[in-house]
Amino acid sequence: MLLTTIYIIAIIAEAMSGAIMAMRRGMDLFGICLIGIITALGGGTVRDMLLNHYPIGWVKHPEYLLYTSLAAIATTFTVRHLHHLRYVFLVVDGLGLVAFTIIGCNIGLEGGVHISIAIIAGMVTGVFGGLLRDLLCHQMPLVLQKEIYAMVSLAAGAAYVAMLKAGINTGTASVLALAGGVTFRMLAI
Amino acid sequence: MLLTTIYIIAIIAEAMSGAIMAMRRGMDLFGICLIGIITALGGGTVRDMLLNHYPIGWVKHPEYLLYTSLAAIATTFTVRHLHHLRYVFLVVDGLGLVAFTIIGCNIGLEGGVHISIAIIAGMVTGVFGGLLRDLLCHQMPLVLQKEIYAMVSLAAGAAYVAMLKAGINTGTASVLALAGGVTFRMLAI
Amino acid sequence: MLLTTIYIIAIIAEAMSGAIMAMRRGMDLFGICLIGIITALGGGTVRDMLLNHYPIGWVKHPEYLLYTSLAAIATTFTVRHLHHLRYVFLVVDGLGLVAFTIIGCNIGLEGGVHISIAIIAGMVTGVFGGLLRDLLCHQMPLVLQKEIYAMVSLAAGAAYVAMLKAGINTGTASVLALAGGVTFRMLAI
Repeated sequence: MLLTTIYIIAIIAEAMSGAIMAMRRGMDLFGICLIGIITALGGGTVRDMLLNHYPIGWVKHPEYLLYTSLAAIATTFTVRHLHHLRYVFLVVDGLGLVAFTIIGCNIGLEGGVHISIAIIAGMVTGVFGGLLRDLLCHQMPLVLQKEIYAMVSLAAGAAYVAMLKAGINTGTASVLALAGGVTFRMLAI
Repeated sequence: MLLTTIYIIAIIAEAMSGAIMAMRRGMDLFGICLIGIITALGGGTVRDMLLNHYPIGWVKHPEYLLYTSLAAIATTFTVRHLHHLRYVFLVVDGLGLVAFTIIGCNIGLEGGVHISIAIIAGMVTGVFGGLLRDLLCHQMPLVLQKEIYAMVSLAAGAAYVAMLKAGINTGTASVLALAGGVTFRMLAI
Repeated sequence: MLLTTIYIIAIIAEAMSGAIMAMRRGMDLFGICLIGIITALGGGTVRDMLLNHYPIGWVKHPEYLLYTSLAAIATTFTVRHLHHLRYVFLVVDGLGLVAFTIIGCNIGLEGGVHISIAIIAGMVTGVFGGLLRDLLCHQMPLVLQKEIYAMVSLAAGAAYVAMLKAGINTGTASVLALAGGVTFRMLAI
């Protein structure tokens, strides 16, 4: 429940960050929406395709496409004022990264893959949306140049899976991974 | 039957347009063929991977690879004369976009997805071939900058699905969506 | 057995070549590892997703991720001395290309696809790792400009599948395709 709430907030924030980059590249409204959607949902999509985990999240929950495209459209009207919220965005971005990671780890573990693959599934969920955004916006993927983002995802995923294997329940492990991951992310700024 | 005929003509035209861009980028014959094939068949490939719809079209029908690569090769011999056909290409491109969209919607609906996802499946079929072509040719995807192309696809897909839901048979709905979509596309030039 | 040994050597060599390009582009250690992994394992991953062949190789064998990321990391320490080994790399690269191709053809044939699709599956395995590396490193894919690489893959794949269809056993056909393909590759330099 906590994880779902954070997830929804995080895909909205990611869609807004994608939309801002698309606007800077002079894209039209369709491009802004598509980049917003792909930034928010692309990591989970790649993960599901790699793990043969169908239906993909947004196929099962079309409302995610609605939330993220509305967030992208809303961004075009409010972008001038969004810089006031930059600290809010940083926290949400950190929370989202770790929430994406935990969800990806869970889907890997449910699929019965090796724990190393579950951690990779978490990292793919966390960072591949931004990587696809950068590819489509025609710039060098940021995640390949600033490793902290991927490191937070891998560390949070590894810690989360380790806690589950140590017998800690999912809820507690999620909260601890979220708290630790976001702190790690904030300290690294 | 009509749809299949238009589809074959459209993948040949798309392969030729991909080949022309590959030639401009100085690619060799392999690159020209691959870009031609991906421009023509890439949208349907992405759609099938997203919807878990296997086997993918060209795996089931390897002759599509033959048609599109022959079209790409033929383009290298005839490219100087093709500009005489630019209006023919525009009409075929518009027809192809709508035919791709309708086929994508049908595959989505057959897969039992939500109608919004069926319309998205149509749009992915229509525009992702060109998007992959632009990515591989190392330029900003055109579809993200000139929204009319995606808008025609989304409008034709939505109209088509709405007609089916209103009880209109597939053949009539296809012809009406094709006529409307191509008119919309031509008016927008 | 021979094929597996060549495969492991080849993914290590490919990971090192990917790491070298990532280092030239100023990536951090995460980027270097990811580009190394994708260069080595990306072709097989795309093939498996296109053919619905799950689990993907590295999901079933997570040790491949370990080998390739260790190879990428080792490259960062030894890159100054690697140019002494450039002829070794060329031979391993040629061997790897043909080994990837044969493995891809085998997976296609096991999946029951048309022989033309099996040859395509071989070529995708052989060249798409490098293509993804170039996309992520933000440069024009080399394979689209220097056709020899793809031609070696297609020729070796076609010869291999033809030998199997002519009743030659897998082991003999593999050795002959490897010998022929590597000779072709070396002559073309």
